[in-house]
This record gives sequence, C-alpha cells and structure tokens, in this order.
Amino acid sequence: MTLGPAAELGITLSVLATDAEDPAPLVAAHAPVGPQAALERVVEFARHCDVVTFDHEHVPADVLEAIAEAGVPMHPGPKALRYAQDKLAMRVRLSELGIPCPRWASASSAADVTAFAARIGGPVVAKTPRGGYDGKGVRVISAAGEVGDWLAEASEAYPILLEEKVEFTRELAVLVARSPSGQAAAWPVVETVQTDSICTEVLAPAPHLDPGLAAAATEAGLRIAGELGVTGVLAVEMFEVPHPEGPGFVVNELAMRPHNSGHWTMDGAVTGQFEQHLRAVLDLPLGSPRLRDRWTVMANVLGGDVEELYSTYRHLMARDPELRVHLYGKSVRPGRKLGHVNVCGSDLGDLRERAQHAADYLQGVIDE
Amino acid sequence: MTLGPAAELGITLSVLATDAEDPAPLVAAHAPVGPQAALERVVEFARHCDVVTFDHEHVPADVLEAIAEAGVPMHPGPKALRYAQDKLAMRVRLSELGIPCPRWASASSAADVTAFAARIGGPVVAKTPRGGYDGKGVRVISAAGEVGDWLAEASEAYPILLEEKVEFTRELAVLVARSPSGQAAAWPVVETVQTDSICTEVLAPAPHLDPGLAAAATEAGLRIAGELGVTGVLAVEMFEVPHPEGPGFVVNELAMRPHNSGHWTMDGAVTGQFEQHLRAVLDLPLGSPRLRDRWTVMANVLGGDVEELYSTYRHLMARDPELRVHLYGKSVRPGRKLGHVNVCGSDLGDLRERAQHAADYLQGVIDE
Repeated sequence: MTLGPAAELGITLSVLATDAEDPAPLVAAHAPVGPQAALERVVEFARHCDVVTFDHEHVPADVLEAIAEAGVPMHPGPKALRYAQDKLAMRVRLSELGIPCPRWASASSAADVTAFAARIGGPVVAKTPRGGYDGKGVRVISAAGEVGDWLAEASEAYPILLEEKVEFTRELAVLVARSPSGQAAAWPVVETVQTDSICTEVLAPAPHLDPGLAAAATEAGLRIAGELGVTGVLAVEMFEVPHPEGPGFVVNELAMRPHNSGHWTMDGAVTGQFEQHLRAVLDLPLGSPRLRDRWTVMANVLGGDVEELYSTYRHLMARDPELRVHLYGKSVRPGRKLGHVNVCGSDLGDLRERAQHAADYLQGVIDE
Repeated sequence: MTLGPAAELGITLSVLATDAEDPAPLVAAHAPVGPQAALERVVEFARHCDVVTFDHEHVPADVLEAIAEAGVPMHPGPKALRYAQDKLAMRVRLSELGIPCPRWASASSAADVTAFAARIGGPVVAKTPRGGYDGKGVRVISAAGEVGDWLAEASEAYPILLEEKVEFTRELAVLVARSPSGQAAAWPVVETVQTDSICTEVLAPAPHLDPGLAAAATEAGLRIAGELGVTGVLAVEMFEVPHPEGPGFVVNELAMRPHNSGHWTMDGAVTGQFEQHLRAVLDLPLGSPRLRDRWTVMANVLGGDVEELYSTYRHLMARDPELRVHLYGKSVRPGRKLGHVNVCGSDLGDLRERAQHAADYLQGVIDE
C-alpha cells in the first residue's frame, strides 16, 4: 500500500522481506529477500537506504541497534518504538504525562494480581508487555491462577501488565503523523468496531462525537507523538468512557506505523496514511488530512471460506461501482486480514450496510 | 501509475520495458527489459500474461500480429487500435458514423492540397496519418510546398491527411472506458488547455459547459468506443465550436489508453483512469466515475531548468498541503512531461492559480 504513493512521489521504495511470497516482494522492484534476523543482511540492506522504516513494531532490539550503528536514520526511532513494543513502558510514560489511562499495575506474583484485583474490584485484563496484537497476549481474568504460566516466567525485572477492564461506550482511534522536524498532522477521530478482538469496521469521522472529547483526544494523540518522539504515523487506540466530569477517554494501545484504524484515509482523506507515513519519515512537509466526503466506512476482509478473491470481488464491483477494494496479496487463512473495503458518501447507514455486505461476501459469510 | 491500482486489486502487473532505466521497471517487480521490436521477446512475455495492454498506440503491426497469433487477449485489440494509429482511417470511420469532424480530405499530390485549400478557403492542417503526437507530424500550411517533403513520400495508397483549421472556442476531452463485454462508463467532459500543442492544464468538469453539448459529446465518446470496439480507456479530444444550430463540437484526435486529459481522475474521481483501464481490459465491472469535489484542476509538469525535483516539490508541499504531486520517474529533458499536479476543491480560480504555481515552480519558471 506504500508502493503506489512512493512511485507517485518519485521515492524508491526498497523492501526487506523474509520470504519471496510475502506480499511486498510480489509487487516492489527493490525487494531483497532474507531472514530479517540475519543482522548482516539487515545492515547491508539499510546501508542502501536514506531512511529505514518498519511495517510493524516488533523489530528485535539487536536489529534496531545494528541499523543505528550503521548510521542509517530510522523512523520511528528505537526510543519511540520502545513504547509501542512494551506496553508496561507505555503505561509508565503515559501516566507520567498525565494522559488518561485505565488503572494499571505491574505484577510478577500471584499476590500482585490478587492485590490489584481487590483494588479495582472487577475483572482484570492481564497483558504480556511484549509481542501481542489483535488480542493475542491479552487475557481477561478474575484470579491469578489464570495467568500462572505467564507469572512463572515473570520477575520483578520482567513483570506482566495488569489493567482494569474498562467499561467503555465505544472504541475510538486518533491517527496522527509527525515528522523528524516536529511537524504534525491529525486526521479526524474515528470509531473502531472490534469483533473478537479484531478490528472489523471503522467509521470516519466517529459519529455523534462530542466536540470537546474530539479535541481532547486529538490533543492527546499529538502530545503523545511529540513527547515520545514518534516519527511517522502513530495510531492511539482509545476507549470512550462515560465520565461526565473527566476527559471521556482512556488510552488503550499505541501503534507506530500505518494502522488498520487509518485504512479509511486511502479513499476518505486528501492524504492517505501510507503516503503521509512516507512524507513523515522522509521529513517532507505533511499532506492535508481533510475528509473527501462526509463519511467514510472501512470494513476489514478476514480470511474465510473463499479461497480465491478475484472472482468474488467481481460480483461486488458490479453490485457497487463506488466500492474501493484493497487487497494485500496474502494467501487466505481463516481470520487473517486479507484486505479491506472503503466506501465514501453522505449516508452513514447506507455506507455501513454496503461495506459490511462487501466484507461478508468476500469472507463467504453470505453468498449474495 | 497503474502499479498502485494493480497492487490494490491483487492484479500482477508485468511490464515489458525497452530499458532498465525506463520508469516502470524502476518500480514494478515483474519487468523484463528488452527491445520491444524483438518479436520472440514480446511473444515470450505475452505468453505469461492473461491480458496484454499498451501504454501508447504506436505498437508496430507485426508485434500486434505476433501477440494475436500466440492467442493472448489484447485490449485494445488491433482492429480498434488502427483508428488511434492512423488518423486517416479514423476520419473515414468517424465520418461514416456521422460523428462531427472538421472538413477533411486525403492528399497525395500538390494538386490535392491546392484543391482542398480552395474548397475550405482558409488555412489547412496537414497531418501524417501515423506516428504523430503532441503536435509532431502536424503542420498548419497555406500552400502545398510547405508539405513537399511529406508529399514526396506519399502515394494514393499512402496519402497524407488534410483538415480545415477549426476556429474553436476551446478544447474539450471526453474520457470513457469500455470493457470487452461492452460495459462502458464516462467521466464528466473536461476542458483541456494546450500550450505550444502540448496539454498543460485540464479543468474538470469543463466550466460553463452547455448541458446539451456535454450530453452530445459524452454520447459521441461512448458511441465511438462501441462502434470502434475500443476496450480500455478511450480519450476523445474535441474542439468546441460556435455553431448554434450544430452539435457544437468536432472530434480532433483519439487516444486508446489512459491519457493526459484524464490524469485529474487520479484524485478527482472515485475511480481513476489507470484503475479503470485495468478493470476494463480485464473485463472486471467498471468503477464509478463520480467527481470527488466540485472541481479538479490538473497542471502538467514539463522539463525545465530544474534538474532535481525532490527538493523542489518539498517547497510546494509546504506551501499547499492539498497539492497532489504525481511524478513519472523520467529523467529531466526540456519540454518532456515529467509529472502532473492535481488540486481539488470548490473555488475554480483558486485551484487554477495553485496548480499553475506548482507547475511553474517545478519547471523553474518561477522561484518562489
């Protein structure tokens, strides 16, 4: 998804891929293939780049160090990435900054868990600080025994993270981009709909959002980007909470890359998140995040019964000529994010119906 | 410009390029390089394709024949392409169809030219039927001696084309796409502004266009596509003429490919012309040509004094965050089309000023 914008801006995009059948080497001209963990390979690749960026946060520390030692600029840099890699470090830092968070604690023993559960008086969300995504590495628990395996591996130096289970009204996301020279731009706050811990739908902008809450959430996103030194796109996932006196939101997760909650921007905003990420990491002036239509609805396409998407999306294109189909070139596996669809227009209910129909059809949930 | 849309739709785009430094092989994963005239090379390439299409019309007949013999579908096909390759064949066919054309004749002798000039009583536009573009192969003459060189090579079997010099009020273009199964879609009629026979600006839609004229011009574009069996994108360049009783336009040229007059669609329409061309040649359902904003203005970037566009466009991005920059990855040569910019919005005068400023700055005409 970055390749098109890069070509349009005359930017040569090189991709270091693990496997020749990965999506990027199938379309990009400059795509050496090799295990990313082979440090020499990474450094050799990086030396040919003006700037290195990442398509996920879980880049091993030794890889980041090797690139830094080679003197190649990295965006986001290791100092910022740490807060996207380590949820406990993120909670510590956001709390220092006074950003609204769920109540949280670190825990390395069953006693820690029991004490935290007693303090919040409700279910506890336990998280491994590193490596989780789409609900992996997250458990909702009521007793310490439910994370006995994690605690067995934990210590005071490497604790797990405990959070209160937030009673939220809905999930929001703030997407911002920030450049090394400090320019920042924010897209409008969106509503994200999760099904089984996976984002399935995004409504842009978030319907009926209190303007004060929208401003506070955007301000928080920009402040996090600045204070943590984030470069590139930052997604701040939030819970909207019913607190008439409080800020009305708490921060759930951070992602430092173009993010699922921003796929709507590819058709719904003047500047899409993949182009904006390129502009940000190259320290080019950022593009306008203005909406192109009153509403944009994004629906994720997850792997289902349909093995071959090409003949399936023909039907959808014929049914809805305004449907924007984005496929990722991944092989089909159940539950895997294979692509997304966007629809833009003025009638939110109609757009939601059309986006959901398209996603359901591509997933084989419906056959008409 | 086709690569991004192809990747999004999961379509593997292979490009047969003449030179490794051509723009396409610099960005596309599947880009064998070799002289296109080497027939074996072309056929070997084509055999790996489901559909072959072209980025210009001037494909030699033996190449088209070789691909056809290999049994690989080609869109547009040789029968349609002939009318984009041969301006005389185009005039004969459009006249048969009753499509408004300038008065025209074929000529193989000085006497033919003199007779035509006497008949129309004004300047004559002489054209070599094949190979011209951007004003090349076109001369405005007042006497046969001015095309003596062309006539020396002409014969009754291979005449040159003569047309009246049309007194037009402005130039228009109709862009349509048509699929092999006959589905067709038309974008709104646009105004094209030419400077020294090169398109420099496009206003979409054409301002203050009479609705009857818009409908008639669109109808003509769709009819030409259907009658000539065009598959893919067809651009019909027209002159608007002051005839209160007549159709108000005559057809100037045909192009059977994504065309300069349609670059505005990349940002100004729900479906851009490069995606639509792919959808058409693959017989996928066509996308909506709906406008995204009230107006879109495109300005071409021609090669000028600026050798290195990257640092130049930084300035423009900072000045105008809504500017959409599209570069083609070509080396800079004076007058060469290197890219284009689009701006979309509601104030046409403002958009024209911004697009022209950006093009002038990228060309080195202004330095602020």
